[in-house]
Amino acid sequence: MSVRIALHLKSVGYEYVEEDLLEFKSELLLKSNPVHKKVPVLIHGDKPLCESLIIVQYIDEVWTSAPSVLPSDPYDRAQARFWATYVNDKFFPAMRRLLVTSSTVTSSTEEAKKADTSEILEGVVLLEEAFKKLSKGKVFFGGDNLGYVDLAVGTLLALIKVVEKSTETEVLSEAKTPSLAAWADCFSSHAAVKDIFPDVDELDGIVMKLRAKSSKAAAATTTN
Amino acid sequence: MSVRIALHLKSVGYEYVEEDLLEFKSELLLKSNPVHKKVPVLIHGDKPLCESLIIVQYIDEVWTSAPSVLPSDPYDRAQARFWATYVNDKFFPAMRRLLVTSSTVTSSTEEAKKADTSEILEGVVLLEEAFKKLSKGKVFFGGDNLGYVDLAVGTLLALIKVVEKSTETEVLSEAKTPSLAAWADCFSSHAAVKDIFPDVDELDGIVMKLRAKSSKAAAATTTN
Repeated sequence: MSVRIALHLKSVGYEYVEEDLLEFKSELLLKSNPVHKKVPVLIHGDKPLCESLIIVQYIDEVWTSAPSVLPSDPYDRAQARFWATYVNDKFFPAMRRLLVTSSTVTSSTEEAKKADTSEILEGVVLLEEAFKKLSKGKVFFGGDNLGYVDLAVGTLLALIKVVEKSTETEVLSEAKTPSLAAWADCFSSHAAVKDIFPDVDELDGIVMKLRAKSSKAAAATTTN
Repeated sequence: MSVRIALHLKSVGYEYVEEDLLEFKSELLLKSNPVHKKVPVLIHGDKPLCESLIIVQYIDEVWTSAPSVLPSDPYDRAQARFWATYVNDKFFPAMRRLLVTSSTVTSSTEEAKKADTSEILEGVVLLEEAFKKLSKGKVFFGGDNLGYVDLAVGTLLALIKVVEKSTETEVLSEAKTPSLAAWADCFSSHAAVKDIFPDVDELDGIVMKLRAKSSKAAAATTTN
């Protein structure tokens, strides 16, 4: 999603090809991302690019006529990279573990779930603070325009709703994360986002399939 | 280490402060990196920067008179970011798990060790291939000069030697990773590296202390 938003912001036309990561990975995907074998991949001309944050930076550096996704000041750029990396490396994995893995492992499931839930709830508080600093009183992490951190956090907004549904816990709230809650509304109704914002029920269905697959794999390992 | 090499390459003077992460984290560290509470942190003026890869990019963007650490072409830059991220997010965690965690967890230790060892051995083969592509026949990943991927991989070279010692397995070898083995010699004797290259025995000692600490923590969790 972050790659598609970046392409939209830069007014770059593209062909969108979906991959069925659950059942069958295409030859094109395996050839284009042999290391991680996952989406997103951007194929620009005949050159494949992998990893969403790296692709977004590439798009930002290649199509320079539209406003920059990353801030122009090196320190601000480092801060944006810090928070996007935090979201990618800490916040998202905690959500994935909670939704997919920790529901399936046999030992210490409850403890793992509790730890992941805490990490997510602490994460949104950190992001609330980051928003106040980075947005400088404006609507987005990137200021008046969608920026690098908006894309990183925004991509996970639908998954946050799946977590809320699954755990019956409010992750984003007016009480604890007012700025982030307001930001979420602005983000999901932005022209570059609203048409591609994932359907939460559909995403919930995919998560359930992933959980079943992970559960099956864990059972197979135990049997072996 | 990658931050110190980058500063050396840019001829930037700095004061180096060591942190004892095992026993006591300083107020300055906790204030400067409240999210991850870990090193490296670069304090430039009064502004703290965290996360080695982000700091190196910052140094590269701020001190532009010396040769660039990242390639100038956006696609080459994306490739450099891809491999540095791979090393940071996949290769290093596998080594850390192998050396610190999987020796201490009670269940499926042998299986976890085997998986981590495979990931490391497959990792160096991937890096060997990456070296051939990125170096374009030159001495370093970055070509004639040390670049972004050199810093990311080079920082782990001493830890690779600790893994080799600990597992009695050859990770880098003339037979399987000839380019990387030759690169390792050039890297560790480079003027910006040789004076700060970690002592392998000393690093091995730190790893053993970390393992003992992790073991103690795991035992405490089990008792609770």
